[in-house]
Amino acid sequence: MLKTRLFTPGPVPVPDRVRLAMAQPIIHHRAADFIPVFQECRVGLQRIFQTEAPVLIFAASGTGAMDAAVSNLLSPGDHALVVRGGKFGERWAEICEAYGVRVTCLDVEWGQGADPAEVEKALAAQPDIKAVYVQASETSTAACHPVREIAEIVRADGDRLMVVDAITAVGVYDLPMDDWGLDVVVSGSQKAFMMPPGLAFMGLSERAQRFMETASAPHYYFDLAKELKNLPTDQTSWTPAVSLLLGLREALTMILDEVGLEATWARTEALAHATRESMRAIGLDLLAPDSPSPACTAVMVPDGVEGPKLRAHLRDRLGYTLADGQGKLKGRIFRLAHLGYFDRFDTIGCIAAIEMALAATGYVHEVGLGARTATELLRD
Amino acid sequence: MLKTRLFTPGPVPVPDRVRLAMAQPIIHHRAADFIPVFQECRVGLQRIFQTEAPVLIFAASGTGAMDAAVSNLLSPGDHALVVRGGKFGERWAEICEAYGVRVTCLDVEWGQGADPAEVEKALAAQPDIKAVYVQASETSTAACHPVREIAEIVRADGDRLMVVDAITAVGVYDLPMDDWGLDVVVSGSQKAFMMPPGLAFMGLSERAQRFMETASAPHYYFDLAKELKNLPTDQTSWTPAVSLLLGLREALTMILDEVGLEATWARTEALAHATRESMRAIGLDLLAPDSPSPACTAVMVPDGVEGPKLRAHLRDRLGYTLADGQGKLKGRIFRLAHLGYFDRFDTIGCIAAIEMALAATGYVHEVGLGARTATELLRD
Repeated sequence: MLKTRLFTPGPVPVPDRVRLAMAQPIIHHRAADFIPVFQECRVGLQRIFQTEAPVLIFAASGTGAMDAAVSNLLSPGDHALVVRGGKFGERWAEICEAYGVRVTCLDVEWGQGADPAEVEKALAAQPDIKAVYVQASETSTAACHPVREIAEIVRADGDRLMVVDAITAVGVYDLPMDDWGLDVVVSGSQKAFMMPPGLAFMGLSERAQRFMETASAPHYYFDLAKELKNLPTDQTSWTPAVSLLLGLREALTMILDEVGLEATWARTEALAHATRESMRAIGLDLLAPDSPSPACTAVMVPDGVEGPKLRAHLRDRLGYTLADGQGKLKGRIFRLAHLGYFDRFDTIGCIAAIEMALAATGYVHEVGLGARTATELLRD
Repeated sequence: MLKTRLFTPGPVPVPDRVRLAMAQPIIHHRAADFIPVFQECRVGLQRIFQTEAPVLIFAASGTGAMDAAVSNLLSPGDHALVVRGGKFGERWAEICEAYGVRVTCLDVEWGQGADPAEVEKALAAQPDIKAVYVQASETSTAACHPVREIAEIVRADGDRLMVVDAITAVGVYDLPMDDWGLDVVVSGSQKAFMMPPGLAFMGLSERAQRFMETASAPHYYFDLAKELKNLPTDQTSWTPAVSLLLGLREALTMILDEVGLEATWARTEALAHATRESMRAIGLDLLAPDSPSPACTAVMVPDGVEGPKLRAHLRDRLGYTLADGQGKLKGRIFRLAHLGYFDRFDTIGCIAAIEMALAATGYVHEVGLGARTATELLRD
């Protein structure tokens, strides 16, 4: 009997209640019974984004909303600063380039958080920069960038947009869109929302809406102006992913009304902290020790162990699916998730499995020390 | 006890088996157990599209694939012919304009099918037209355009693309992509596929792939070249809508391996025919009598009856959700679906409900004659 457990930083396990909500008979998106479903989703999203601004919902994966955050806000020839410290930082640059936006990249070593002073320097040197694109949590390296500090710099001088890929940050830690002055915040359903993939979200400040009016990059499916017009009537421009919205409503109820947003952040941080400490206890290095994201932890595969073999052992023998590194980190790290539907006992079990798999693939250590460390830290 | 029944031409009811398939625990899209799911989906889609060409799958609604069929195949300044005979014909024109494509519209009266001779004339007069955009089944009017004949004209002369919105045609009637020489065929999950909305599909001929290479309209999320590269490895470029793919695999098994594609077309046509005849029997006019789509039937609201009241009575008193007209047809027609998970008894029940609602909102007729007509026609 091999029980299988998903520990990737998206998709994450979907609670039974949410899966059953999605299995309800389908309803029509222009009919009256759709209105309360959509309304609860959009109001719940505003709470989890911590904003009074509208939060749009797209039938797309998160990259779709990232695309819209360029194609609807800038014009060809505009100048953007991209903080590039991982696979998703690279994606911002690629999207900007696809739409003819001139890009200055602030390259950050993979696993590090960006230095706000470097952002300040870049903006001072290039005053024509109209928007700064950054990840709140760079999922590929498990590092956080200091969004609050960067936003302060962006806000301090000039009329620029602060655009944040918070796909693995919204609902993961305290990232108040309005208080921090973030103009665009993007997220996706398969992360802290405990949902299958297929929905993308975007909070849009008044400033962003103003930029939208003069932006000229072409777009059709992702049309923020059209969505903003339809939103107050609880409608989307195109047919929405109705079954996923039925699930989202249930998941938002669990997060916001039952567990609570602050308790969700605290749980995620506790799991992340216990994981980091347990990995250190058994002598492993973290990829992002200085600026770790609570969304997931990236652990360096130790010398003498082959990354693919370690992950195959975890998956095929022990039933645990963990994530590989992406891009240049492929095979060099493994990543396990904390965001979403995970609790203490899930995490302790996963750490125990990692220890067993490490032992089986050539890493000599005191098996059980990691699980003990996590158990001690997660007692209360 | 009011049982509710959805009769809109998308979304359509989702079979229990498909809903339970989507309620399975989520799997990771880069893990080994995802491969057979995706493979069965893409091979099944080729069968239902009747093509050897690749069929791409997007996390999006059908409009997303329509967008991609312009933004990936043409360049600003290119010239396209759009057959415009309803709301979705208008959408082709809007998408072309959004990407700077010059559009010549062949306007067709709403409810009519296009005249192939007019297409021939337009192409002869404007030899720089690079692509013809058309609906196979114009859902807003319930009319079909003669795609086969138009494709013959497009194929006869010059190197042009034949792009077909078959969102309510694939799996509805015999529309062989390869045999008819169609270059791009677009569809969506919430139609004949008996699925919730959230997946868009696109069959892409070799000619279309060649056009793609020189097209310069900007795009990122919908990137056909990138998807084509990933497809043979059973992967999508961005995170796919995993739960919907689990459902799609089940639905395709039902359609292709259990019911059969030809039996599906025959059932849909029989339901459509019986519906048209029963509406005629009680004295109602059809919007598209000459070129009706089997996907759905659009019935004119008779004089003396208010469309909104009729539909409200159906919904609130009898439990049937039917579709309104769109655009300039709002309130003037009602539409009921035949494509997807409907059988004879669903359809006879719906016709009976329409008769009762007509009687209750002011249309004097022999109540039951419609249901009797449908029952006679659907006996065998």
